[in-house]
Amino acid sequence: MVSGVSIVGIGATDFSKNSGRSELQLAVEAIADCLRDAGASPEDVDGLSTFTMNETSELDIRREIRMPDLRFFTRVPFGGGGGCGTIAMAAMAIKSGIAKSVVAYRSLNSASKIRFGSGDLVPPPESGDQRLFVNVGLMTPASRAGMTAQYYLHKYGLPDTAYAPFALTAREYAATNPAAFYYKRPLSLEEYLDAPWISHPLRRFDCCQESDGAVAILITSDERAKDFRGIPIKVAACAQSCGFDQIGLAQYWSEDMLELPEIPGLVRQLQEQSGIEVKTVDAAMLYDHFTPLVALQLEQFGFCEPGEATGFAADGQLRIGGALPLNTHGGHLGEAYLHGMSHICEAVRQLRGEAINQILEVETLLVASAAATPNSALILTKH
Amino acid sequence: MVSGVSIVGIGATDFSKNSGRSELQLAVEAIADCLRDAGASPEDVDGLSTFTMNETSELDIRREIRMPDLRFFTRVPFGGGGGCGTIAMAAMAIKSGIAKSVVAYRSLNSASKIRFGSGDLVPPPESGDQRLFVNVGLMTPASRAGMTAQYYLHKYGLPDTAYAPFALTAREYAATNPAAFYYKRPLSLEEYLDAPWISHPLRRFDCCQESDGAVAILITSDERAKDFRGIPIKVAACAQSCGFDQIGLAQYWSEDMLELPEIPGLVRQLQEQSGIEVKTVDAAMLYDHFTPLVALQLEQFGFCEPGEATGFAADGQLRIGGALPLNTHGGHLGEAYLHGMSHICEAVRQLRGEAINQILEVETLLVASAAATPNSALILTKH
Repeated sequence: MVSGVSIVGIGATDFSKNSGRSELQLAVEAIADCLRDAGASPEDVDGLSTFTMNETSELDIRREIRMPDLRFFTRVPFGGGGGCGTIAMAAMAIKSGIAKSVVAYRSLNSASKIRFGSGDLVPPPESGDQRLFVNVGLMTPASRAGMTAQYYLHKYGLPDTAYAPFALTAREYAATNPAAFYYKRPLSLEEYLDAPWISHPLRRFDCCQESDGAVAILITSDERAKDFRGIPIKVAACAQSCGFDQIGLAQYWSEDMLELPEIPGLVRQLQEQSGIEVKTVDAAMLYDHFTPLVALQLEQFGFCEPGEATGFAADGQLRIGGALPLNTHGGHLGEAYLHGMSHICEAVRQLRGEAINQILEVETLLVASAAATPNSALILTKH
Repeated sequence: MVSGVSIVGIGATDFSKNSGRSELQLAVEAIADCLRDAGASPEDVDGLSTFTMNETSELDIRREIRMPDLRFFTRVPFGGGGGCGTIAMAAMAIKSGIAKSVVAYRSLNSASKIRFGSGDLVPPPESGDQRLFVNVGLMTPASRAGMTAQYYLHKYGLPDTAYAPFALTAREYAATNPAAFYYKRPLSLEEYLDAPWISHPLRRFDCCQESDGAVAILITSDERAKDFRGIPIKVAACAQSCGFDQIGLAQYWSEDMLELPEIPGLVRQLQEQSGIEVKTVDAAMLYDHFTPLVALQLEQFGFCEPGEATGFAADGQLRIGGALPLNTHGGHLGEAYLHGMSHICEAVRQLRGEAINQILEVETLLVASAAATPNSALILTKH
């Protein structure tokens, strides 16, 4: 079990559609911000953990940050599915005594440079069978997720407006978050409906943004956490999981194509490690690449019954005061797309009591990375 | 400390210049061979650890191997420097209780497909400043290492034949190893001298081969090791390290351009973890991308004094019966180029007492991954 490990710092750049800086510059800014937040110095960090997709060198980051020691570095595959995994790797290194403190980070110019939604992106080698779908015209993540989203509506007899509450709620939260791209710009149902189809039934605002920016998170042992400034947040559980025969965002031939095959493994591990039943957490930060996948996560993590997630959202259960406040920073839909790492930061802010949209009573939080891919998740709690 | 972890299985494909199979097929064959060696089944494995450069998907491997559970997956950056790092990641996951048994693997068609020596290879993002050297005509690893090799000869007043003993010794070992590409083909000094320059003073046989093949290694806890067939080999220490401001194979502006800046950090960690002084190990498997870098490693790991490594090799100290039997399988120069993973297998065979060129008394072994890059190393011992 990875016990005895805490998150002691979070940092980020501004989030934009054109940063005007390199991924390296963004990463360094976010890490510097994270160290300031923790009251830590580069001497305190001796490990780096990121995504295989990250377009920067650990050596360059070390040089720019002026880290005197770097003795742990690894990268988690499967794109956004790696987010919480970067924390898990850090936790293992710390728990094993290999590293004392690790920065997990992600920097990307996904609006101004590599647009995941453009269809131009060559799948990384670990994507495996995704190449099959590119060949039949499912060029983008949205086109693959659209097929699943369509079937969900069909199965439960829902209209193609059913996903709207997810988009509207995210934008409500973002509207009060100065870091959000959609700050002060809540979304009306009319605007939602007027926006163009991206891949039916996905409208524009059902899809995450493409953003430029970076996020960094500092992880250390509970003992060392006392040396830092802020309120340490406990990593009560961290897990990776994937389905057998899983294909990212395209599980079409499964007996139930709505199944997120990575979730049972995550739930089992998170519960074993934390002793907390996942469906009882006070709030969640779920990966919102596409609104229908938020619906599937809510159901399959156990927060509501199959087919009920869109109603759950429409009832306001994702708002503060609802059954499960969700992505209170605005998520990828409202704040910015940082491959799920900003969701971890928001979980930390909530547990510290420092969130813009603060939940009044929050002791336990679920964070999950990209659903419908090999994935990772965390349970974070107050100490 | 990562104690309580053992290597319980090793496996490989044939090594060739044209496998005729995909990297996936090669990886799966090597993993199957590794599981057979351990007397393990796919049910026993729940983690995969490899290189960022590996051109296969963990999902595809899982499917082909029929692994029912996969709950740990990560990738180590920096090419060959990641070799022992894949074992370190596995050890951390096992030690943390996240995974029960992990396969570390590397598969590559580096002869028939992606030839590192061709100059066509686009440096992966983590290579950072290597791009600077490509721009000034140092297109290949050999061209960069050649500059360092030249300066070593200059500094110590050595002839450009000084590196020959490394090549000849490797080929001596390979000549008796049926798995080696150069099986039954020892190298004479005449052949060595007649071979073309690759990048002066590197002749053809100073440079590692380009090979097709795969290697897999099974790591588990000492407790679980009892369930498997073979003699478990103890991971007494595992470490990653890199220099500040390091540039892979091109440390030209350093005060001493012969310095391998990653080595002090490796030595310190290996000694702390194992309690074994690195320079006292019974044998070593050192990364032989280029013979001069073997010389530098011998000196900087403390096996001989600066400037003495070529004499050390010429005196036969790397042979069985010498002071430090080295790469007894023939290494990259004689057996095949598997990004250092085959060196770990040979260390295991030696400690089991199953090597083709068996060292009579061997209790402790150093394995190091690619020198002159961000790197990783192991101390392996008998239990």
